[in-house]
Amino acid sequence: MERVYLDNNATTMVDPKVKQAMDPYYMQQYGNPNSLHSFGTEVHPEMSIALDRLYEGIGAADEDDIIINACATEGNNTVLQGIWSGKLKENRPFHLVISQIEHPSIAHTADWLESMGVRVTRLPVDEQGLVTPEILKEHVSRGSADLVSIMWANNETGLINPVQDLCRTAHDMGALFHTDAVQAVGKIPVNVGELGCDYLTFSAHKFHGPKGVGGLFVKRGAPPVSLLYGGEQMGGKRAGTVNVAYMIGMGLAMKLATDALDYENTKVRELRDRLEDALKRIPDTVILGRRENRTPNTILVSFKGIEGEAFLWDLNTNGIAASTGSACSSEDLEADATLRAMKLGADLAHTAVRFSLSRFTTDEEIDYTIETIRKVVQRLRSISSTYS
Amino acid sequence: MERVYLDNNATTMVDPKVKQAMDPYYMQQYGNPNSLHSFGTEVHPEMSIALDRLYEGIGAADEDDIIINACATEGNNTVLQGIWSGKLKENRPFHLVISQIEHPSIAHTADWLESMGVRVTRLPVDEQGLVTPEILKEHVSRGSADLVSIMWANNETGLINPVQDLCRTAHDMGALFHTDAVQAVGKIPVNVGELGCDYLTFSAHKFHGPKGVGGLFVKRGAPPVSLLYGGEQMGGKRAGTVNVAYMIGMGLAMKLATDALDYENTKVRELRDRLEDALKRIPDTVILGRRENRTPNTILVSFKGIEGEAFLWDLNTNGIAASTGSACSSEDLEADATLRAMKLGADLAHTAVRFSLSRFTTDEEIDYTIETIRKVVQRLRSISSTYS
Repeated sequence: MERVYLDNNATTMVDPKVKQAMDPYYMQQYGNPNSLHSFGTEVHPEMSIALDRLYEGIGAADEDDIIINACATEGNNTVLQGIWSGKLKENRPFHLVISQIEHPSIAHTADWLESMGVRVTRLPVDEQGLVTPEILKEHVSRGSADLVSIMWANNETGLINPVQDLCRTAHDMGALFHTDAVQAVGKIPVNVGELGCDYLTFSAHKFHGPKGVGGLFVKRGAPPVSLLYGGEQMGGKRAGTVNVAYMIGMGLAMKLATDALDYENTKVRELRDRLEDALKRIPDTVILGRRENRTPNTILVSFKGIEGEAFLWDLNTNGIAASTGSACSSEDLEADATLRAMKLGADLAHTAVRFSLSRFTTDEEIDYTIETIRKVVQRLRSISSTYS
Repeated sequence: MERVYLDNNATTMVDPKVKQAMDPYYMQQYGNPNSLHSFGTEVHPEMSIALDRLYEGIGAADEDDIIINACATEGNNTVLQGIWSGKLKENRPFHLVISQIEHPSIAHTADWLESMGVRVTRLPVDEQGLVTPEILKEHVSRGSADLVSIMWANNETGLINPVQDLCRTAHDMGALFHTDAVQAVGKIPVNVGELGCDYLTFSAHKFHGPKGVGGLFVKRGAPPVSLLYGGEQMGGKRAGTVNVAYMIGMGLAMKLATDALDYENTKVRELRDRLEDALKRIPDTVILGRRENRTPNTILVSFKGIEGEAFLWDLNTNGIAASTGSACSSEDLEADATLRAMKLGADLAHTAVRFSLSRFTTDEEIDYTIETIRKVVQRLRSISSTYS
């Protein structure tokens, strides 16, 4: 049976070049990079190249910091908890502003911080599903917020928030600005210099690197944030023996992903658009979020009368992997927060299915997917009690 | 040039069987285990086997928890910070008891917690270099401590603390007990059921698994501790996409390490003893810590008149990797905390060198090491200003 992977917003295949680059660091060059002997020091040049690639990939300056960590969840927790504990130490209140469409690693961390006494404001989205500077200004008064954290692109819809304007507005209000750029890196140009953000989170496994390594950008001069205390790794900012293989893999994955940005925005976009156009030709189908506001690889679609899970199951038996809701919380059967925030109504929320492509997606896979979806929709609607 | 790796307390070579077991999870079975489709679910059986191997390896019961995380630093921070934030939420004070010979991921986390208002007691060691129940009872009054955290085996000396007695004493005092077992797993039998601890930390890269994955044991009924909030991974106790490859690798590494415990305590011990006996025959040499109190793979030795760093450098040019102080903090040039706690005096502390073997160490490597050390000691003493 053919296997088609269209769930690249959940995780991606590791690029074969990345896998190959990591292989020597298990049985040959396995030293601890903090050791003084040659087993330790011989890995430094490649680690340094990896770090350079990460700086270049997101447009960071030499004076900025990129802290290698275990995942975006760690990066997001580090920023939110780090700012909180800094305030707590000085016995000062903390007002955190997020949006209603953040990933659970922001949303649930904010919930926890709220339970610890932090003031949390959760911004709604506009009718397009976007968080805008106007919404920020409307809900937060000048000088009141300490940190504004808004995701760059949404994992469910692919919708791209105007982070540059949001960052400027947050700074005008006197707040720090963080963005969870997990769904942006490798899909659209990401440049922290142009953006001006104080903190930015990314995760290798969303851009064809391995699961279990990520990075946190910290702008020069921004308040330092730490979560893991211990050894002097990462200049004392993130303790823990460095995962040398994955750090080197992430560096290469970043380079390959940024090198492929043109391809992503031409060929991948073209494949996505072709799939989307075919879906739109199926009657009673709604595509969520305007195409020009989305990352080039994502479609969130609703087929009237078809439960999302049933649809996915049929697709899966045909070898096609897609998603309802975020895979990060699929064990949780509540309606997805993003869809609730978009006020879609129960039927749209329960029928929404996400397709997310990658640079490894082929024309043949899209042909097969279109053909399969047509059959699946027909079959499921023919037995649906809510479609006629 | 021959290469001999005798720094296994800093990190270890990944067992080739572990590397092989991880390989399919990058380009073939790369799904997110939280996804509902077959790319996601097909990795569940091997993840389940890995978890079983971890439970079996440390003797955990089905009702206990083992939380997969990124490293021992994360595990140690999770316990200390998790208990702290739980107390903070209830507006209750927190009294943490550690020892003066803990790894930086305990010692520096305790320093940070102290800066946040936590009461920290740091237990000294006895003349053998051990933390004993008597020391605990002497320094901490009954009912006063909330959490006692004492490492099982010390990274520098290999000295094994009487954790079972310490655990019983801590419980008698009404405190929870955590042990950092990073240097114990794979070297001596570790059984959380017999020990009775509430929390235990381990790290794959110290037992021939990869760097960047570890585990935290939490006994059934012990207060839950969390550090990373977000998705529902690990039953909501540790958010973040699971590093599937490394989790599977760690499971196998645990099995191989526990299967090899007999070998570790016979052959590795014999090699270590042979090296140690040869070192003792060199005049003006001190071995630190009684042999019967140490893990079977570790020697901490001082050669009078020879600066540790100079010695390591000469060894390194001969292809032999050993260590002074903990590699985890080698960028930090302060005298090691363990050696300070043992009140060794400046000359012993500055001349101490650690050799740590593994099950991959061979007879030939030990022969070569003995021969090389004799030459190096002779050469360095001949030019030493402090040896005559």
